[in-house]
Amino acid sequence: MKRYQFAANSWAEVHEMERGDKIILIPLGSTEQEGIHLPIGVDTYVAEAIAQAVAKETDCLIGPTLPVGYSEWFLEFPGTISLKIETLTQVLREYISSLTHHGFKKFIFVNGHSGNSSAVDVVSREFIMSHEVQIAMVEIWKIANSLAKDIPKLKENVFKHAGELMTSVMLYLHPDTVDMKRAKVEYVKSNKPHFTVKSTLGPAEFKGVEITLYDKAKGLTESGIMGDPLSATAEKGKIIVNTITSYLIEMVNNF
Amino acid sequence: MKRYQFAANSWAEVHEMERGDKIILIPLGSTEQEGIHLPIGVDTYVAEAIAQAVAKETDCLIGPTLPVGYSEWFLEFPGTISLKIETLTQVLREYISSLTHHGFKKFIFVNGHSGNSSAVDVVSREFIMSHEVQIAMVEIWKIANSLAKDIPKLKENVFKHAGELMTSVMLYLHPDTVDMKRAKVEYVKSNKPHFTVKSTLGPAEFKGVEITLYDKAKGLTESGIMGDPLSATAEKGKIIVNTITSYLIEMVNNF
Amino acid sequence: MKRYQFAANSWAEVHEMERGDKIILIPLGSTEQEGIHLPIGVDTYVAEAIAQAVAKETDCLIGPTLPVGYSEWFLEFPGTISLKIETLTQVLREYISSLTHHGFKKFIFVNGHSGNSSAVDVVSREFIMSHEVQIAMVEIWKIANSLAKDIPKLKENVFKHAGELMTSVMLYLHPDTVDMKRAKVEYVKSNKPHFTVKSTLGPAEFKGVEITLYDKAKGLTESGIMGDPLSATAEKGKIIVNTITSYLIEMVNNF
Amino acid sequence: MKRYQFAANSWAEVHEMERGDKIILIPLGSTEQEGIHLPIGVDTYVAEAIAQAVAKETDCLIGPTLPVGYSEWFLEFPGTISLKIETLTQVLREYISSLTHHGFKKFIFVNGHSGNSSAVDVVSREFIMSHEVQIAMVEIWKIANSLAKDIPKLKENVFKHAGELMTSVMLYLHPDTVDMKRAKVEYVKSNKPHFTVKSTLGPAEFKGVEITLYDKAKGLTESGIMGDPLSATAEKGKIIVNTITSYLIEMVNNF
Amino acid sequence: MKRYQFAANSWAEVHEMERGDKIILIPLGSTEQEGIHLPIGVDTYVAEAIAQAVAKETDCLIGPTLPVGYSEWFLEFPGTISLKIETLTQVLREYISSLTHHGFKKFIFVNGHSGNSSAVDVVSREFIMSHEVQIAMVEIWKIANSLAKDIPKLKENVFKHAGELMTSVMLYLHPDTVDMKRAKVEYVKSNKPHFTVKSTLGPAEFKGVEITLYDKAKGLTESGIMGDPLSATAEKGKIIVNTITSYLIEMVNNF
Amino acid sequence: MKRYQFAANSWAEVHEMERGDKIILIPLGSTEQEGIHLPIGVDTYVAEAIAQAVAKETDCLIGPTLPVGYSEWFLEFPGTISLKIETLTQVLREYISSLTHHGFKKFIFVNGHSGNSSAVDVVSREFIMSHEVQIAMVEIWKIANSLAKDIPKLKENVFKHAGELMTSVMLYLHPDTVDMKRAKVEYVKSNKPHFTVKSTLGPAEFKGVEITLYDKAKGLTESGIMGDPLSATAEKGKIIVNTITSYLIEMVNNF
Repeated sequence: MKRYQFAANSWAEVHEMERGDKIILIPLGSTEQEGIHLPIGVDTYVAEAIAQAVAKETDCLIGPTLPVGYSEWFLEFPGTISLKIETLTQVLREYISSLTHHGFKKFIFVNGHSGNSSAVDVVSREFIMSHEVQIAMVEIWKIANSLAKDIPKLKENVFKHAGELMTSVMLYLHPDTVDMKRAKVEYVKSNKPHFTVKSTLGPAEFKGVEITLYDKAKGLTESGIMGDPLSATAEKGKIIVNTITSYLIEMVNNF
Repeated sequence: MKRYQFAANSWAEVHEMERGDKIILIPLGSTEQEGIHLPIGVDTYVAEAIAQAVAKETDCLIGPTLPVGYSEWFLEFPGTISLKIETLTQVLREYISSLTHHGFKKFIFVNGHSGNSSAVDVVSREFIMSHEVQIAMVEIWKIANSLAKDIPKLKENVFKHAGELMTSVMLYLHPDTVDMKRAKVEYVKSNKPHFTVKSTLGPAEFKGVEITLYDKAKGLTESGIMGDPLSATAEKGKIIVNTITSYLIEMVNNF
Repeated sequence: MKRYQFAANSWAEVHEMERGDKIILIPLGSTEQEGIHLPIGVDTYVAEAIAQAVAKETDCLIGPTLPVGYSEWFLEFPGTISLKIETLTQVLREYISSLTHHGFKKFIFVNGHSGNSSAVDVVSREFIMSHEVQIAMVEIWKIANSLAKDIPKLKENVFKHAGELMTSVMLYLHPDTVDMKRAKVEYVKSNKPHFTVKSTLGPAEFKGVEITLYDKAKGLTESGIMGDPLSATAEKGKIIVNTITSYLIEMVNNF
Repeated sequence: MKRYQFAANSWAEVHEMERGDKIILIPLGSTEQEGIHLPIGVDTYVAEAIAQAVAKETDCLIGPTLPVGYSEWFLEFPGTISLKIETLTQVLREYISSLTHHGFKKFIFVNGHSGNSSAVDVVSREFIMSHEVQIAMVEIWKIANSLAKDIPKLKENVFKHAGELMTSVMLYLHPDTVDMKRAKVEYVKSNKPHFTVKSTLGPAEFKGVEITLYDKAKGLTESGIMGDPLSATAEKGKIIVNTITSYLIEMVNNF
Repeated sequence: MKRYQFAANSWAEVHEMERGDKIILIPLGSTEQEGIHLPIGVDTYVAEAIAQAVAKETDCLIGPTLPVGYSEWFLEFPGTISLKIETLTQVLREYISSLTHHGFKKFIFVNGHSGNSSAVDVVSREFIMSHEVQIAMVEIWKIANSLAKDIPKLKENVFKHAGELMTSVMLYLHPDTVDMKRAKVEYVKSNKPHFTVKSTLGPAEFKGVEITLYDKAKGLTESGIMGDPLSATAEKGKIIVNTITSYLIEMVNNF
Repeated sequence: MKRYQFAANSWAEVHEMERGDKIILIPLGSTEQEGIHLPIGVDTYVAEAIAQAVAKETDCLIGPTLPVGYSEWFLEFPGTISLKIETLTQVLREYISSLTHHGFKKFIFVNGHSGNSSAVDVVSREFIMSHEVQIAMVEIWKIANSLAKDIPKLKENVFKHAGELMTSVMLYLHPDTVDMKRAKVEYVKSNKPHFTVKSTLGPAEFKGVEITLYDKAKGLTESGIMGDPLSATAEKGKIIVNTITSYLIEMVNNF
C-alpha cells in the first residue's frame, strides 16, 4: 500500500504533512456501459491507473476514488449505476469541504468520465470563491483526444467512446476485462435527417454548427460503441497511458 | 402582444392547439457582468430577440423567458444575480414538467448563457428518458462562434465574452445600453505561468492541451471584457443576428 | 432600453450607484389560467407594466421579472406553468441574496399573483432578520381591490379573478390578447351545500365565517372566470392602472 | 384516554374503522412568544382544546398534534421554537401521505397559528389534486375574530395577538399559565411614518390600502402584546371557546 | 399546566431562567403499530409520562413532544404515521437550533421509539461539534430492558415489542387503551431457514452472530406482537415506570 | 481483474447474467481516523478484502466500493473525509435504484464502518417495501466482535476501535500501513463522573444501564485508539480474517 494513497496514512501522518502545499489528486470514475466489449468500470480503472502513475513520480497524494458518477442517460444499458447530478455535486462538496477543513489547499480532479464534469465545475467554483484554494480538473479522455494527434500509430486520432483509444488503454491496463470477440465498428447515428450526433451526451451538429440534441442512448447506438475498436492494441494503450502520464506529471509540477 | 408568445394565449387557446406538434422555444438568459461597457442583461436580451425573430418566421411558440441563470462565479461583479445550479435545474424541471403535463412534446432551449447549459442537459436527459418528447438546446454564442468564420467583416472570428460579436449584437439590438466610451481590449490572463486561460468558466490550456483551471473571475479580468469590443458596430451586429436567425429558422424547420 | 431596468445597466454602472439607497422593484408574475378570455401571462404583464410606470416617476430600479410563479392548483388548465412553492422560495432567496451581496438594502416586490405571496413572506422575513434591509410587498390585485371602491364607473367594486377589473386592465394594456367573444359571467361555486367558496385558492365561508376549503379548481369553475368581465372597458383599465400607479409612486416615495 | 384520540386506537381498531368516512381533525400549534403574560404554548393548547371539544360531540378522530410550527420571525423572543416553512410543509406532506395510504379521505386542520397556514395550503392543494380526498382548514383565531362581533361582552371585537380574546381563552383553559400582573396594553407600531402595521407577520397599510411591510418583530412590539389583554376574563374565555366549538361542530357535521 | 412544561412559560419567564444550566427533556414518540392490543400512541404516551415523572422531581423543563417519528417499515399496519428519516432529522435540527439560539445548553432526548435514534444521533453530533452544549439520549425501552433483570416478578426479563413490559406499562398508564382480549403470544419469525430475526427493524442472527436482515414487517409478524403480553399487569407496569423514573432522576442529577 | 468485480463486466455480460439470482456484495468503507498507528482507510481496506475473499468462494458479484462514509464526529482528526448522513443515504438509494432497475434482487452490504449503518437501514427498508428484493447488511467489526470469543489467542475478546483485532487484521492485510511504533493502549474516558463511555459514537453507561452520551471525539480519546493494539500480530489477523470469511461464505450460501 503506497503512501501516495491518502487512505494509507494515519491521521497523525496527515497531521504532520505540509497540508497547504500538498496536491491531492481525486480520481473520478463511473460505472456505465462502455461498449459491448469493455467493462463498465473503464473510467474508474483508467482514472485510478493514471492517478497512480502520476503520484509515483510526483509528491501528490491520491484521495479516495469515487467509482460511481453521473451516467443517468446510460441506465438503459444493464450494469450502469448512476447518481443524480445533484447527489454527485453534494458528494464532491462534502469531500472537498472535509479536506479544506484539514487545511489542504490544492486539488486536481482526475476525471475519467465527462458526465461528472459539470458537478466538478460547480463545486470547484464554490470553493475558489469561499476558500483560499487552487483547483483544477483534468479529463483523461479529453487529454487523450488532444494528445492522440501526436501519436503516430493511431488510426483514430480523436477520442471515441469505446473506440480505438479507450480499447487500447484497457487492453494495456486490464486485458482480462476486454472481450475483443464482441468488438465491432459502430458510430452514433441521429434518427433525425440533417442532424449529426457526436455522442450520447447531446453534442450534435446541424449544417456544421454545434447544437445539442437530446436522444435516448439506445436510439443512437446498439452496442454502446461509438468508434472503431478493432485496431486497438495493448501496445498503443501503453503509449497512450504513458503520454498522458508524462503530460500530467509536467502539469502537476507546474500547478 | 404577438400570439407566438406563449403567455399571450388564453388557456382555451392553448387547449385548442396541436400541442404535440408545436415547438416551444424557451429563452434562457442571465443577469451577470458582461464587460464594463455592456448591460448585465445581455444574454437575456439576445436570447429573447433571437427567439422572437425565429418565432416570427416559423410556427413556434416562445415560452416565458428565464432572466436569471447560473452565474455564481461572477458574483464578485456588482449586479450579477445568480441561482445555484441545483435551483436552476429544479426550475427547468418544473417548467418542462408543466408543459409535458399539457401534452407539449417539442422543446428547444434558446440559451444565451453557457453557464445554464449543464442544467439544461440534466433536465433534458431526464425528460427524454421518462416522456415521449424531443428536446434540443441551441447556445446563441456558440452558434455565433461557429458562424462568425463565414462573416467577412469581423475582426474576431470567434466568440469572446464582451468582445466584437457580443458588442456588435448589442449595438444593433439595444444601442442605448452600450457605453462604448468604457470599451477597451482585455483578455483573460492566468496568474499561473505556463497555463493559458480561455474564459472565466474554467477552460484552460497547459502546453496546448485542454484542461480546466478554476480561478476567481476578478483575478482573470479587471473589466469583464475578454476580447476586443472596439471594432464592434451595429451593422455587424445586424448581420450576426440575421445569420443566427436564418440558421435557427432552418434548424427549427428540420426539427 | 430604459436605465430603470436593472438589466440595462453594466456592472460598472451598478457599482457606481448609491446601492444602499436605491429601491429595487421586483415584478413577480405567473403563467396560469386567467379565465377563458384572458392570456395566461396576465399577472406578469400587469406586474411589469405597473413596475415600469412607477419606475418612470421615481428613482427605483426594476429587477428581472420572474414570469413563472406558484400556480400548482391551476395545472388542470392547459398552459399553466408552475413552480413548486419550495422552488419559488429558493429562487427568491438566491435573488435577494445576490442583491444584498452587492449592497442593495431596499426591495419592494411588485407581485401580480397572490399565489406567490407566501414565498415572498418567508424570504423577506429571513432577510430582515439576517441583514440590515427593508422589504415590502405590494400585491397588485389586492391594491386594485382596495382602490376599486373609489373608482365610480366600476360595476364590480372588488377584485374578482378574470372579472371586470382584471379584464379592463388587460383591455387597456394588451387588448390584442383579450378575446371578449369568449368572456362570460361565472362565479366559483362550492359543490358542498352550506359552504361558499371565494376563490380557487381555498378561502371559503361556512355560515359567514371564513374558513379554508381546498377543492380542485376545475370543480369550482369551468371557464376560469370568477366574476363579471362583460362590463370591462379599456377606459376603466386605464383608470385602474393609473390609480394603482399613483398610489404606488406615493408609497415608494415614503418607503 | 378517549378513543377520539387517533393515537389511543390500536392498529386493528384503525383497520376496522370506516376510514373513508372518518374525519380526522389535525391540531396544529406553535411554540412562540404570545405576549409577556401568556405561555408560549398558547396556540397548541387552544388547538388541542378546541379539537377535543369538537371531537366529543361528533364522530371525528383527532390526529397527533404538531406543537412546533413556523414562527421564525419570533425567534428574537426567548422560548420560540420554529421549523422552517419547508420543513413544516414536508412534515404535513408525510403526515397526510401516511393517512391517505391507510385509506383516510377527510381531513380538517385545526390550526391555532396563522404562520402555519401557507404550509397547510400547499400540502392540501397537492393532495386534492393527486388523491380523492376532502381537506379543509379552520384557523382558530380567525374564527374567533369573525365570531367576536356577536359576543356582547367583549371590548375588543376583533382578534389581537395576546389581546382580550386570546387572554380570555387562556384564563379559561389554563389560568395557571397566565400572569396577569405582567399584562398591559400595547399595539404594534411601524417605525416608518405614514405606514400602519397590523401584525408582526407583515400585513400593513399605507393610506388605508393593504400592503405588506416586513419588520423585525422586536422593532414593532416590546412585550409581544398587540392589543388589550386587561379586560380579559375566564368567563369571556368560556363563551369564546364555546362559541367556536359550537360553530365547528356544525361545520364538521356539514363537511 | 405545570411550569416544568416548557410551553407553559411565557417568553419573559424563559428569558429570566438560567438558560445555560437548565436541562431540557425532549420527549420523542411515534404513531405506529404496537401490537394488536395496544394503542398506536404507546411510545408517545410513555415518553411523556416518564418525562413528567422525572421533571416533577428535578429541575428540568420538558420541551414540546414530537408525536410522529420514523416508522416507515410499519406503514403496512393501518394507523402508522411516519416521517422520512431526513425529515425527522431536519425537525430535530431546527428544534435544537431554536433552543441553542436562546442560550440553552443541556438537552436530554427522552426517546420512546428506537426508530428515532439515528436521527437524534446525527443531530446531537452536529451540535456538540458546533456549539458548547451537552446532549444525551435515553431510550425508554432500552432502559426498561436493562432494568428488567432486577425486577423479580417479570416473566420476560428483556424488552419485547408489545410484550410483557410494554403491555404492563400501558396497563398502568392508560388501561383504557389496552384491549387484553386481543392480546396473544407471538414472536417474529424469519422466513429464511437458519436465520433468526430479533425485531422488525432488521437485527437478526445467523449461527449466533449478529447481522441485519431487512424484511417486510407483515412478513415477520401478523399481530404486531413480538413477545408475550399475557402475563402483563398494571402492577408490574407501575414498578417498571417507577424503576425507570428513579433511574432517570439519578441520571439527570448527575448530568 | 476478476469477474466477481461487477465493474469488470461489460454491459452485455451483465445483461446475460441471471440477475434476479445473483447476490451483489456492496463494500462500504470510510476515510476516518483509526487510531494514531493505523491508516485512515482501514474500514475500506477491510470491507474490500473480506468481500473479495467471500466472492472468490461463492457466486457473488462485488459492486463498486464506497470509500467515504458518514464519520462527521471524527472531523477533528486530520484526514477524516465525511459525507453528511443524508448524502450517504441518497447515494445508497441511487446505487440500489440503479441495480434494481436492471433486475438485480439480492444485496448484501459488507459494511466496514458502523457509522454507515443507519443509512443502510433506511434505504434497505425503503426498497424491501417498494420492490421484490432481499437485502442484508453484515458489519465486519460486529462479526469480528461476535466471533472473537472463539479465537483462543486473542487478549481482547471484544472489538475495540484500533485495538487488538483491528490492528491484527491490518498487520495481516496491509502491514506497510501500520506504524506499531506509535501504537499504545488508550481507552475512551468520559469527562463526566459516574458515566462510562463505550465509543465515540455515543454509547455510554450510567450505573450499568445503556444510554447515549454525545461528546466531541477529541475529548474522549487523544490517540484515537480505544483499546489495546500492542498484542496485535499478523498471525492473529489472518485467523480473524479467515474466521469472518468462512462465516460469511456460509451465510451467503444460505441467503
